[in-house]
Amino acid sequence: MSVTDPLGFVAAGIAAGIKPSGNPDLALVATEDGQPVTAAAVFTSNKATAAPVQVSRAHLAAGNNKAAAVVLNSGNANAATGKQGTDDAERMTALVAEHLGCDPNEVLVCSTGLIGIPLPMAPIESGIPALVAARAKDQAEQAATAIMTTDTHAKQTLVEGDGFLIGGMAKGAAMLAPNMATMLAVLTTDAEVDQAVLQKALQHAVDRSFNSLSVDGCTSTNDTVIVLASGRAGPPQSGDFTDALTTACQDLASQMAGDAEGATKVVTVTVVGAASDEEAAKGARKIAESQLVKCSFYGQDPYWGRVVSELGSAGIEFDPDLVNVTYGLVTVCQDGVAATLDDSEQQTLAEHMRERHITLLADLGVGTGRWSILTNDLTHAYVDENMGTS
Amino acid sequence: MSVTDPLGFVAAGIAAGIKPSGNPDLALVATEDGQPVTAAAVFTSNKATAAPVQVSRAHLAAGNNKAAAVVLNSGNANAATGKQGTDDAERMTALVAEHLGCDPNEVLVCSTGLIGIPLPMAPIESGIPALVAARAKDQAEQAATAIMTTDTHAKQTLVEGDGFLIGGMAKGAAMLAPNMATMLAVLTTDAEVDQAVLQKALQHAVDRSFNSLSVDGCTSTNDTVIVLASGRAGPPQSGDFTDALTTACQDLASQMAGDAEGATKVVTVTVVGAASDEEAAKGARKIAESQLVKCSFYGQDPYWGRVVSELGSAGIEFDPDLVNVTYGLVTVCQDGVAATLDDSEQQTLAEHMRERHITLLADLGVGTGRWSILTNDLTHAYVDENMGTS
Repeated sequence: MSVTDPLGFVAAGIAAGIKPSGNPDLALVATEDGQPVTAAAVFTSNKATAAPVQVSRAHLAAGNNKAAAVVLNSGNANAATGKQGTDDAERMTALVAEHLGCDPNEVLVCSTGLIGIPLPMAPIESGIPALVAARAKDQAEQAATAIMTTDTHAKQTLVEGDGFLIGGMAKGAAMLAPNMATMLAVLTTDAEVDQAVLQKALQHAVDRSFNSLSVDGCTSTNDTVIVLASGRAGPPQSGDFTDALTTACQDLASQMAGDAEGATKVVTVTVVGAASDEEAAKGARKIAESQLVKCSFYGQDPYWGRVVSELGSAGIEFDPDLVNVTYGLVTVCQDGVAATLDDSEQQTLAEHMRERHITLLADLGVGTGRWSILTNDLTHAYVDENMGTS
Repeated sequence: MSVTDPLGFVAAGIAAGIKPSGNPDLALVATEDGQPVTAAAVFTSNKATAAPVQVSRAHLAAGNNKAAAVVLNSGNANAATGKQGTDDAERMTALVAEHLGCDPNEVLVCSTGLIGIPLPMAPIESGIPALVAARAKDQAEQAATAIMTTDTHAKQTLVEGDGFLIGGMAKGAAMLAPNMATMLAVLTTDAEVDQAVLQKALQHAVDRSFNSLSVDGCTSTNDTVIVLASGRAGPPQSGDFTDALTTACQDLASQMAGDAEGATKVVTVTVVGAASDEEAAKGARKIAESQLVKCSFYGQDPYWGRVVSELGSAGIEFDPDLVNVTYGLVTVCQDGVAATLDDSEQQTLAEHMRERHITLLADLGVGTGRWSILTNDLTHAYVDENMGTS
């Protein structure tokens, strides 16, 4: 169930002292032999890109999209830290390279935590040699733990393809403390995949998993998803590599949505009958990011009027007289007006709204486009967690 | 201080019984003689347009942009109510026309309240004759009171131009209960203004007032701003009609932002140094609508890192190394990194964050575009108010 299950990978996680709490905060995923393998990555689209994103992007370009290791720290995002930030991120990769015996350009770096505070380099400088020394097949759990911020448990996955494995770990509970909401994921596979194919598969997987997980519509400065392919298991038997990678990413995204201690609901918002998949995604996102709709989930209130209103202002093809809205199995809005519900339907609806996992389906009735977005409710605990950085 | 101050207008407000509470819920603004005058309106851009918006738009077209009255109800939005909704809205205007002695096409209609529930027509049918009979110069306060939903006080304004008056009333505190967040405003003037000029002036005023007031990024199905011009004071002396109308709308918008009982902060978010005014508005809106930033206002936390992150994902020209962020008079981010603050500056900053009115200024350093948006903080009370419709 981890990044070290596919052939050719090791991992490590230690408490270096970046977090005042003393919790684990430095992680490594590396190839077993320290040699670079095919790599692909998807980074945040935020223009205020954090230093580690800038450095990882540059290293992939300079290293011909090959990497031997990914070093990750939690407790500090190294974002909005200027020239010092990129120097610090470069220093992290140089130290790993020195101890692993590879080129610095073959090391990628990720950071997560507060924005605008310089990285504390002393614990990192002293921690990296120990981190590299600790790398092993059985240290994946430690790595997954060391990247946690407000996550309440480590998030790992393993997907078996036809003759290959894909392992993964992630952190991110944009859920409750999105001040520190960076989403990081590192995936490994022993499949032998061409870099262009790997990159395309990763983008496909990310679009349908992490990019379809919406908590508050905020895009972090540090979001990064990296996949390393050792090639040890040979080329995939069939065209199922993309599907397997998508499944792995969806499993990690679903674990993120579920790890929302203060959120009381996990909600799948699906829009069908849209003019296109893109329009469906736009509509689903508008609903999923609506403060009003999210409050109504918290209140277990199937307030479809607001859902229709959000769809009307989503900038997509929409006819208010054609829309249906369904919570769970109960259609509450038919052709744009309130559906008549009998007692039994009312009861089924109320029961569904009390569930931890709510499904909301909106059918626009104008085409065949469809998309799902995973989200949470907006709660008192969300407000509490985000009132301050201290 | 009201819609009846300009020459030629009367108003009324009564409790018709639409609201279960028994509070006033039916209002009228009409010309003194029941004759139609030049009218202009700006309606919601939401495609899920409520019935009264559809009917008002049709009446303006059919009545050659002239109107003798506006009838408004609170307690029910008459939105997502299908064919019955437009029939009901038409019936409201027909009844007013009958008792006022004008053509139904010369009556405009606005509704505000919950979505998806048919309008209770019995109290409206019996209320309208009494409403029209009650119209008078001194009933403007009653009208402004009857359009309130979660507003804690009536909102009225009066602006003196050079030889003319502009009066206005509005409801809307999208602030705390945006389930019922429709923004309605009716303005009157005795200036003699050509319809095309009136429409253009109103759009200019709305862009810089109601459209620059952002509470939760939700666009109501019912938002409507109407201005009636009696012409009794003759043509405006100078080109200041647009300025006066903008001032009137800004005064009403500011009263809305201030009427946020549960919100603890009123925040002016200004973006300067943008590539254009449009880009500045886009950046300011992204900040003002960020759940994370709004929580930080509530926590009195000058968390500029999140502000920079929002600007980076606003889809505008942005260089993280050029951005400055200032709260009140204290610049906390200079050229994209944390500014060094001495004790006195720290104290000034902390004092400003404790104020009810916070100002946040972001200078992008890439151009001369600028825009301000007025917003509030995201609080426990917001969540409470929006958990349910009951």
